[in-house]
Amino acid sequence: MDPQVEQQLAPLRARCKDQGDIVRQLKESGAPEVDVKREVQELKNRKKELEDMILSLSPTDTFDRAKMNDLIKRRFFYDISFAIYGGITGQYDFGPMGCDLVDNMLAEWQKHFVIQERMLKVNCSILTSEVVLKASGHVDKFADYMVKDVKTGECFRLDHLIKQHFEKKLSEKKTSQEERETINRKITLLDGMTMEEMDRIVKQYDMKSPLTGNDLSDAMEFNLMFPIYIGPSGNLKGYLRPETAQGIFVNFKRLLEYNQGKLPFACAQVGNAYRNEISPRSGLLRVREFTMAEIEHFCDPDDKTHNKFDQVANTEMMLYSACAQMDGESPRKMTISEAVRGGLVANETLGYYMARIQQYLLKIGINPKKLRFRQHLNNEMAHYACDCWDAECLTSYGWIECVGCADRSAYDLSQHTKGSGVKLCIERPLKEPKMVESFIAVPDKGAIGKAFKKDAKAVQEALAALSNEDAEKMDKALTETGEYDLNGYKLTRAMIPSFKREQKKVHVEEVIPSVIEPSFGIGRVFYSLLEHSFRVREDDDKRTFFSLPAVVAPIKVSVLPLSNKQEFVPFTTKLADALTELNLLVRVDDSTGSIGRRYARTDEIAIPFGVTVDFDTVNNVPHTVTLRERDSTEQVRIPIDDVPLTVKKLADGKIQWKEVTDKWPRFIAQETTK
Amino acid sequence: MDPQVEQQLAPLRARCKDQGDIVRQLKESGAPEVDVKREVQELKNRKKELEDMILSLSPTDTFDRAKMNDLIKRRFFYDISFAIYGGITGQYDFGPMGCDLVDNMLAEWQKHFVIQERMLKVNCSILTSEVVLKASGHVDKFADYMVKDVKTGECFRLDHLIKQHFEKKLSEKKTSQEERETINRKITLLDGMTMEEMDRIVKQYDMKSPLTGNDLSDAMEFNLMFPIYIGPSGNLKGYLRPETAQGIFVNFKRLLEYNQGKLPFACAQVGNAYRNEISPRSGLLRVREFTMAEIEHFCDPDDKTHNKFDQVANTEMMLYSACAQMDGESPRKMTISEAVRGGLVANETLGYYMARIQQYLLKIGINPKKLRFRQHLNNEMAHYACDCWDAECLTSYGWIECVGCADRSAYDLSQHTKGSGVKLCIERPLKEPKMVESFIAVPDKGAIGKAFKKDAKAVQEALAALSNEDAEKMDKALTETGEYDLNGYKLTRAMIPSFKREQKKVHVEEVIPSVIEPSFGIGRVFYSLLEHSFRVREDDDKRTFFSLPAVVAPIKVSVLPLSNKQEFVPFTTKLADALTELNLLVRVDDSTGSIGRRYARTDEIAIPFGVTVDFDTVNNVPHTVTLRERDSTEQVRIPIDDVPLTVKKLADGKIQWKEVTDKWPRFIAQETTK
Repeated sequence: MDPQVEQQLAPLRARCKDQGDIVRQLKESGAPEVDVKREVQELKNRKKELEDMILSLSPTDTFDRAKMNDLIKRRFFYDISFAIYGGITGQYDFGPMGCDLVDNMLAEWQKHFVIQERMLKVNCSILTSEVVLKASGHVDKFADYMVKDVKTGECFRLDHLIKQHFEKKLSEKKTSQEERETINRKITLLDGMTMEEMDRIVKQYDMKSPLTGNDLSDAMEFNLMFPIYIGPSGNLKGYLRPETAQGIFVNFKRLLEYNQGKLPFACAQVGNAYRNEISPRSGLLRVREFTMAEIEHFCDPDDKTHNKFDQVANTEMMLYSACAQMDGESPRKMTISEAVRGGLVANETLGYYMARIQQYLLKIGINPKKLRFRQHLNNEMAHYACDCWDAECLTSYGWIECVGCADRSAYDLSQHTKGSGVKLCIERPLKEPKMVESFIAVPDKGAIGKAFKKDAKAVQEALAALSNEDAEKMDKALTETGEYDLNGYKLTRAMIPSFKREQKKVHVEEVIPSVIEPSFGIGRVFYSLLEHSFRVREDDDKRTFFSLPAVVAPIKVSVLPLSNKQEFVPFTTKLADALTELNLLVRVDDSTGSIGRRYARTDEIAIPFGVTVDFDTVNNVPHTVTLRERDSTEQVRIPIDDVPLTVKKLADGKIQWKEVTDKWPRFIAQETTK
Repeated sequence: MDPQVEQQLAPLRARCKDQGDIVRQLKESGAPEVDVKREVQELKNRKKELEDMILSLSPTDTFDRAKMNDLIKRRFFYDISFAIYGGITGQYDFGPMGCDLVDNMLAEWQKHFVIQERMLKVNCSILTSEVVLKASGHVDKFADYMVKDVKTGECFRLDHLIKQHFEKKLSEKKTSQEERETINRKITLLDGMTMEEMDRIVKQYDMKSPLTGNDLSDAMEFNLMFPIYIGPSGNLKGYLRPETAQGIFVNFKRLLEYNQGKLPFACAQVGNAYRNEISPRSGLLRVREFTMAEIEHFCDPDDKTHNKFDQVANTEMMLYSACAQMDGESPRKMTISEAVRGGLVANETLGYYMARIQQYLLKIGINPKKLRFRQHLNNEMAHYACDCWDAECLTSYGWIECVGCADRSAYDLSQHTKGSGVKLCIERPLKEPKMVESFIAVPDKGAIGKAFKKDAKAVQEALAALSNEDAEKMDKALTETGEYDLNGYKLTRAMIPSFKREQKKVHVEEVIPSVIEPSFGIGRVFYSLLEHSFRVREDDDKRTFFSLPAVVAPIKVSVLPLSNKQEFVPFTTKLADALTELNLLVRVDDSTGSIGRRYARTDEIAIPFGVTVDFDTVNNVPHTVTLRERDSTEQVRIPIDDVPLTVKKLADGKIQWKEVTDKWPRFIAQETTK
């Protein structure tokens, strides 16, 4: 960075570092979690100050969101759902352009990950039984805080409400300097507050509904999952899944079998997920219905090497480590190999996926200068995760998380093992067999048979499957109370007169695999991609377009007759059919309007290549046409029969535009837009 | 058909014809609908008798459903959802094989329809506002009948319950001949009964819950949509969409704009839809969550020709007309051109899509002998539809509807025009301009401005947009009551002192487009495809497999080292990588087990081509391998470097297996399965 800029940033960097040191110290001294949390929150705020300053000091970005949104709406990339009925917030319909762009992004994802890594794939129910989401923790923990207008029932997200109220106060002249400082401090701490703390603030400042001025209810938790009652009786409760991952975990056993019992393997799922946001805003970045693409890579917890790591080892990445964040430093560029070898990224498999994620994002057109991987701070990470990095894209909303990449250890499979009673683990051969002591119930089979009749077998099996701990517990209970409840069967001392200890030689051990999870929020990647590829022509600021790579561009090629003269028709028809034959999506624009204006229209919807049929096409043999590239607006003159395969290769990324201009003569023409 | 068989069928055919004539007569004489309905129901039952007899007399089909289901489950094509938690009826998870097969079917669908026909595509919200489904008619009409166990709340579909009760009665010895006949008659009529009629039967026979013996509630309607409350307040009601079509209709205006205002155009959508079935059964054929692929083709109601009809005109199709069904005749083979020219199929566009649907189904592997197009009988058709044909596949469950193809006329766009107040129509130039009389409000602008301030403009616009009828109504109301409510604005006579009549020359007319709708139930096509491609090896009835065409087969090629000797590894790795490089999904099976057993394993999951690396590969230069085709089990010996492109062409359907056996020497080897 520019030394002058660095000078301006230095004090902010120092503020971060000071606070980072406080956090480190508290952690080392084993301070209570609540204290650590408060200081981490302050750290985050200082980090944000620093980032805002960096953004404000960087060379002016001419990006104009309103202009882009106009193009998006005008050419129906996407729009709010049910617009003719007034629309509905937090939901979007993708028009032809948006839909094809997303589909092409996903097709590329499929090739890049599923095919290249030979992953398994599943497609599981979106309607999910409550019991599954109970086990995963979503029923208990997947919530935001809110308050209600006591009269209208209108709901407000608690943190948003408080922030809005405070911001209004700050804008009022009558607010004293002292009050301002108090309020600023409170805003700073908001993100880390408990529901009770926030509720106290609402009451202390006597906050009302910002819409009606009515009183507000007490703060409450609101679970973000949409409940669903399956079947007509209403007895079977479920939810729309809040993520796709659980479908993979609950099928782990079958997937392992499918993979002939071997680790590692990865399984992918692409599909919708749902979150009942309290008050969605920020367009596509916070919606109620969205597409995810998730991968669960299952591996031995003691061996997280990756056999293809060498292939990505030299990938340079912009990494923003937790340490750098605490020290007020900037992200650092390094190879993923350096990061893994140096211990910054927890293991090879996690590093491998980070590099592959970056390769994918760059391939579809994310700007490498607006991409970084940020490590979660310790208290951001789920308690079971070992390490977690987010691929973040810089947009006009700031840095936004687009892809998460986490080592979730054995958490998910353990939870579902507990929840379902089905062991989700592998048997790993021991290097040397070992002796283990078992504590075993010795049942009186006659007594059990008499008591449980046809269920006796199930009881016997449950007894045989008891862990040592549970057997100890049962023995104790039978001694102390004479009874023990085993999966709903009431056992008595008479049925289990004794227990015994046994030495057994075992050759395998049961191990719960670790899970490395790359998780893509497709809508966020899509939105970032639109911002990163939005362009305005230098010579005419009304000509806006998307510079999407051909591989994801919705339509690959346009075919334009110079005018609507009948003699052009056989050529345009034949050419368009030949291109379609190669499974390229073609757009024929034979509307009136100058050729320049029609180029502008095709540029708007990101069509990378355009072919024009003109008088020379008709009159000369061999028949030639012009082929134009969107970003450079360069054109060549090329025989019409060479067009289909040339465009196909360009669209598949097999050749570059330069190879075309090297081979065929340049065609110079005025692009009239009037 | 065999003349002997025809002799047996003749009386059943005659019974159909007799009944068909009764129906025709009733219709001609304009009999009440309820009478027609009853006789049509009897006709349907006779048709079913006839079909059952035809099926029972056809050459024995050796299909063994249990055997197929075993393979489906064992190799995880699909399984009941959340199986480790006991599963949930009516929902299925697709494993790697099922998921890839569906994805490949959809990719082919995309090429066949969207790309080849240059269709538009949308992806709309699944969470749908109530107002949309109110307009479409689903809120009021999308229901089944059911009764509840009054104590447990368990629900039963009314028709299923009655049928089950009657079947039990018929199986009891004590049931008299007379009772049997009555019951049989009632079963026959069940399908066409109203809820009240069925409810009377439940009470007359004193039917109880078949599970508990408890009393049953009165019959009730049960709407099959899943309700959803969007947002935290619970005030915004919606449903999970019951079909994908509505998303296209509500976006019609934007799509028309996108298509530069021109008709015809088609728009496709692929996605999930939901129906809360009362008691789902029949595996994948009746489920609560399913994938649809729908196309809405919008065209001028007065011009339903199709410019590509000539390309399909000679397609031979098995058509089962409504007439043939009424006459007890069999479906007839004819070209789609004959069918359209002869007036059997309502128009070219409908015929074009029927032919394209057939081409698609055959391409992905549906057995042409088990495919027919059945025309809806008059009373099966929605009242607004002009003509409707179902592509039906013959499975072990009988003939099942897989794809519908209907001319829905202007119904959907009219409904949403009414519901939203937004005109979903096109402006069609008139051949000659015509004079029309308008009845126009002449407002007092000052009065309106004073009364409505900033809303005055909206009121003026609403006044200008009034239809003649509404203007008449307003005039009358202002005269009689002095007031009129226009979109919530209260108007008085003082604001609209007068009305005037004006002659205007108009050059265009507003027309609501017709909709032709091909609608694919992907799960049903998928299931039929599995049945149609299930095979058992003649020489070993334990070797079952799916003979799926390469274009949809989940994995395209397997790579098998002859044994796990280290010297094979470099060859298998290099070959597998080269195949993967071409974006082919590859399965390397280096597990122990004879090569024959491994071939059997790869056959099971429908891998069409297999490459084996053996000692000759290692020892000879040029290195050669064997390439095997699944259905014929034929093998050739081919240089290893020629494999990737050869397999790629085979997988894409660019070359046929015969071209491979013509080119390379045959390789003969024992396929040991032991």
